[in-house]
Amino acid sequence: MTSTTDFANDIRLNGAVLLAQLQQLGNIGCDTDSGGRTRIALTDDEKAGRDQLVAWMRELDLDIGIDQIGNIFGTLLPATPEEKSLAPLMIGSHIDTVKNAGALDGCYGVLSGLAVVRAFREANKQPNRPITIAAFTNEEGVRYQPDMMGSLVCAGGLSIDTALQTIGTDGTRLGDELKRIGYAGDIAPTSVVPYEYLELHIEQGPILEAEAKQIGVVENLQGISWQKITIQGNANHAGTTPMRLRNDAGWAAASVMTFLRELAASSTNTLATVGSLKLAPDLINVIARSATFTVDLRDPDEQQLRSAERRLQAYLAVLEQQEGVKIVSKQLARFEPVIFNTRLVDEIETSAQRLGFSYRRMTSGAGHDAQMIARIAPAGMIFVPSRDGISHNPREHTDDEQLLNGAQVLLDVVLQRLEM
Amino acid sequence: MTSTTDFANDIRLNGAVLLAQLQQLGNIGCDTDSGGRTRIALTDDEKAGRDQLVAWMRELDLDIGIDQIGNIFGTLLPATPEEKSLAPLMIGSHIDTVKNAGALDGCYGVLSGLAVVRAFREANKQPNRPITIAAFTNEEGVRYQPDMMGSLVCAGGLSIDTALQTIGTDGTRLGDELKRIGYAGDIAPTSVVPYEYLELHIEQGPILEAEAKQIGVVENLQGISWQKITIQGNANHAGTTPMRLRNDAGWAAASVMTFLRELAASSTNTLATVGSLKLAPDLINVIARSATFTVDLRDPDEQQLRSAERRLQAYLAVLEQQEGVKIVSKQLARFEPVIFNTRLVDEIETSAQRLGFSYRRMTSGAGHDAQMIARIAPAGMIFVPSRDGISHNPREHTDDEQLLNGAQVLLDVVLQRLEM
Repeated sequence: MTSTTDFANDIRLNGAVLLAQLQQLGNIGCDTDSGGRTRIALTDDEKAGRDQLVAWMRELDLDIGIDQIGNIFGTLLPATPEEKSLAPLMIGSHIDTVKNAGALDGCYGVLSGLAVVRAFREANKQPNRPITIAAFTNEEGVRYQPDMMGSLVCAGGLSIDTALQTIGTDGTRLGDELKRIGYAGDIAPTSVVPYEYLELHIEQGPILEAEAKQIGVVENLQGISWQKITIQGNANHAGTTPMRLRNDAGWAAASVMTFLRELAASSTNTLATVGSLKLAPDLINVIARSATFTVDLRDPDEQQLRSAERRLQAYLAVLEQQEGVKIVSKQLARFEPVIFNTRLVDEIETSAQRLGFSYRRMTSGAGHDAQMIARIAPAGMIFVPSRDGISHNPREHTDDEQLLNGAQVLLDVVLQRLEM
Repeated sequence: MTSTTDFANDIRLNGAVLLAQLQQLGNIGCDTDSGGRTRIALTDDEKAGRDQLVAWMRELDLDIGIDQIGNIFGTLLPATPEEKSLAPLMIGSHIDTVKNAGALDGCYGVLSGLAVVRAFREANKQPNRPITIAAFTNEEGVRYQPDMMGSLVCAGGLSIDTALQTIGTDGTRLGDELKRIGYAGDIAPTSVVPYEYLELHIEQGPILEAEAKQIGVVENLQGISWQKITIQGNANHAGTTPMRLRNDAGWAAASVMTFLRELAASSTNTLATVGSLKLAPDLINVIARSATFTVDLRDPDEQQLRSAERRLQAYLAVLEQQEGVKIVSKQLARFEPVIFNTRLVDEIETSAQRLGFSYRRMTSGAGHDAQMIARIAPAGMIFVPSRDGISHNPREHTDDEQLLNGAQVLLDVVLQRLEM
């Protein structure tokens, strides 16, 4: 421990550079009116973000590799051939965003990884095994589904061929867009197997702020079920069709939303959200012929999540009869809850204690790349507070001091794991 | 009466031409896949429909005039200067359509008007006062609101200047589009005041078919209230925001739809429809920041309609508090119920009897140009059945025989009103 501490004293976080890079990356794809940035996976703006990240990796003289799904890896190599041959300690997250997003979601984890290797560079030290900084492709899943695709492919949960064939909401093929922006690499995604994986992220929820805790020690992550539901009714004249004779797809969709709200309210941890909804023909004086909407169900308990899915399906069956509509539901994504590696969770807690930060163990409400990598390597996550719990929004904010606290814990955990 | 009948015997409806023209006009803007046609007001396709109508008016050697809002008038003139100076008996409707519409809504009334004057031409007879066939601009109100705009301007309910300044859902200015398609005329809309006004239309509802009646004698028309409601909430992460801490604009919109459904179900004649709804940012894993939707309320009783509007406003006020959202509602259109001219209603009923058709007196569920012209002249409407009550849909259908029945009644009423 003493030597470790001595050594750790030489390897220091450069907070100024980390904060500056967060701002610079946040300016790419930024809309000056809303203050939000939009770097949806494999668009021109996201390519610009990738180019900036790669440039920063070059400045740190990292070994840069791109895999076939476009995941970017920047590796700080150790000195000896034996050490070089070891599996890397990986620090990762993503730099793609939702529409009109904040600057921290994902980017904070990737750039804090760069800050860790920068600390080694500035101390002129080398680690005793490779440290790889990873930026995974399409974590948000806005344009191409499922989300967390890059890390999912790495973990072998989705074949690279299937992933490249994915058709986006805009009709584009993922493989084509990846080539177009110049990030279709050669590395086989499944060949990248880390020794251990760490991800630092903003909470994107209100819990740490509400309890005035500086660090979230993430124990587990709730399961996610995404469905797309299409309701087919009849487009009739809004003025001449008696209510009892209607097959109103819009009304049917609204009643599903009401059902989901009550389902969530009546359960302990289940969350239910309808974030996207479209009506056709979408005219003021025509009853909706069809309604297409998404359902996002989450629960840290797999049994509870399954029960929510079952209850929804049962309700849709009743609604079909009751409203004389046809309902088709399609699973877009499904991930079971994840339990993170206890050794890493304990290590993160110990670091938070050693550095004197207030902390709490907690569940991750959002999906993260860490849940995918957890399938192939020990994984752990560190959270910092989000003001008002807001994310996926220009008002997403974490104080600089809190951002640096999280990066300090990440660096400390890395040093401990490398037993340096 | 005898002379009338004798005379009427010479003036006969040419059913073949009427049915052929309905089909020809229906082919303009038609989508061969869906079988529906789209001639939204002042688009290129609607201009093509206008050009065809004007060509047919020319074939009948009618006096053609276009007013400043683009209403098309084709007049069959009487013989003497005295008769020519009389106010015209007007037969009108519209030829613009909703998206993916049927071939009869509106067009049936206009082309039946042409059939009436054709009957005079083919019998080589002249009426004792002008007969004007009118096609009113933008009855559907899909692109520019309010709907029934052309007849509303004629009736002095909307100034021509305001109407021409209307900005469409696609950002275009009505006056510019009217010029672009070449239908910005010189006639002052309010200078056109009919002696009497008749409109023949498909029911667009299921009542006549359900009761196996051939003719609908329209006594009145229900009032219409159109509103656009915008709900402002907060865009938070779908996975990390506890249900109790959400300000979900999408959920709030769904609860308004539920409220309206219950309001309509609990009243005798009120109809409530939400036909258009859009969420933002409209993403699967983001709680909706805003929801913008339309409300279409109808009732034949003005007091009932007002009460529905009041109850909706009261509910929105409660919802604002309960869900922590901001709600703004804007009146897009508001028309009181209309009572049609009793003399004309009786005349239509008498004609239906004389021609041996089964009929019923009824309320019009849809809005029609007749309700606007009723403000400045005695007006009446004739309905024919709609199969399955379907309209604003490619499956809109009325049997040829039923279409000709309606035209027969129209022609007979015209001959009676002209006391020929």
